[in-house]
Amino acid sequence: MKGKLHVIKIGGNVIDDPKMLDRFIHDFAALEGQKILIHGGGKLATQMSDQLQIPVNLVDGRRITSTENLEVVTMVYAGLISKKIVAKLAGHQCTAIGLSGADGNSILAEKRSVIPTDFGWVGDVVDVNTAFIEDLLNKKITPVFCAISHDGQGQLLNTNADTVAAEIAIAMSERYDTTLMYCFEKNGVLQDVNDAQSVITHLDYAQYETLKANGTIHDGMLPKLKNCFHALANNVKEVKVGTTAMLDKQPIICTQISL
Amino acid sequence: MKGKLHVIKIGGNVIDDPKMLDRFIHDFAALEGQKILIHGGGKLATQMSDQLQIPVNLVDGRRITSTENLEVVTMVYAGLISKKIVAKLAGHQCTAIGLSGADGNSILAEKRSVIPTDFGWVGDVVDVNTAFIEDLLNKKITPVFCAISHDGQGQLLNTNADTVAAEIAIAMSERYDTTLMYCFEKNGVLQDVNDAQSVITHLDYAQYETLKANGTIHDGMLPKLKNCFHALANNVKEVKVGTTAMLDKQPIICTQISL
Repeated sequence: MKGKLHVIKIGGNVIDDPKMLDRFIHDFAALEGQKILIHGGGKLATQMSDQLQIPVNLVDGRRITSTENLEVVTMVYAGLISKKIVAKLAGHQCTAIGLSGADGNSILAEKRSVIPTDFGWVGDVVDVNTAFIEDLLNKKITPVFCAISHDGQGQLLNTNADTVAAEIAIAMSERYDTTLMYCFEKNGVLQDVNDAQSVITHLDYAQYETLKANGTIHDGMLPKLKNCFHALANNVKEVKVGTTAMLDKQPIICTQISL
Repeated sequence: MKGKLHVIKIGGNVIDDPKMLDRFIHDFAALEGQKILIHGGGKLATQMSDQLQIPVNLVDGRRITSTENLEVVTMVYAGLISKKIVAKLAGHQCTAIGLSGADGNSILAEKRSVIPTDFGWVGDVVDVNTAFIEDLLNKKITPVFCAISHDGQGQLLNTNADTVAAEIAIAMSERYDTTLMYCFEKNGVLQDVNDAQSVITHLDYAQYETLKANGTIHDGMLPKLKNCFHALANNVKEVKVGTTAMLDKQPIICTQISL
């Protein structure tokens, strides 16, 4: 029988709010069994870029990663946020380790083709070092990943945090029954974006296609849900979208995704 | 019989110069056997503090670590420098892992007493997690430490990189025959600070006391040499001070320290 594993991704809203972060750290440390954390941090990186007067270039709402931008995200994600989380977890008797994809050669990626759009130093995951990660889990060390990978040739690459979470969950599903949770600022996928209570509690692929076609689901939810279905189609056992309250033992409103 | 281990500390001069860093990475990756890297990065952190208009406060030439300073060093040391080194080592077929002392609870420290001087978020090493480090070495993963430790209660602490190197070397000497190398911008300890060729090739404690008393050795060399003798007095087998050329297979001028 496979062991159980939680792969939990937190977004900027949790990281940026000290109280929310502390509550999450408490809940995550208390979560029983093996677990992996993936964190974003885009807002803090944008603030840092502003302070350093480094331009943020977007194409179709997506960030272009210049050399300077990559340095900023490396500082903010792999340095500031990662180590703050790891130190706080240690304070809750949860020994953790903050990793980029270069560390332990844990996430190998390929620089994205410059055709049709040159996104700069952006990478797409090609391999996850499951043996390395499993070994940490067996030693009761909780991996904390930021969304930075590497190409194995000396170059760090910026990678979408939702995608990193999905790829880690998929890779680990060979060895574990994996639950992937995307924690963000909303209670789940909403029927009406202006009504926080209009959570779609169960969403399957057919419904998703319908809601996408009629415009109910749009913008940032589309790539997130694409990652959800991609994970489920590749042996991840369970995928949920909602707030960090999903970690509580009491049942909570969220969106359960199914194929 | 104990295995051999190299503990190598590089200073800001290597990190700040891309060509020197690349050469060092090449040599370090090629160094046979088990090895640990400790890096500084103070100059880059000072530059970043300047850019972010965060004041650098010094007392007796020593940095006071305010909350903002700690955030900057965490970004620069544990983020930018650490991940750049790890990615570059991976490009030379050396799988490495960039660590702060919070990661894997590897370096536990105690916040320094505010009496007689309040140095801010500065920590003194109280424990090195040798089992964790040895396990990485056995898996052929090279630990790369920055000079940030933690107090085990959720707080990161700034720690002198030379001291971190000495404490790691001492702790690992229970299990390994350890050589500690301090690489910096000079060829070794100099008889005359204005003559780069005046290297004292062997320095023992009695000579050190004499040279300290007559003012030949002063300023930044004093704490560095204190770390050297502290390491030798605590089972570290060999301690050398010089440039990164000490890593070359050919014999090179440097200062060999002995008790």
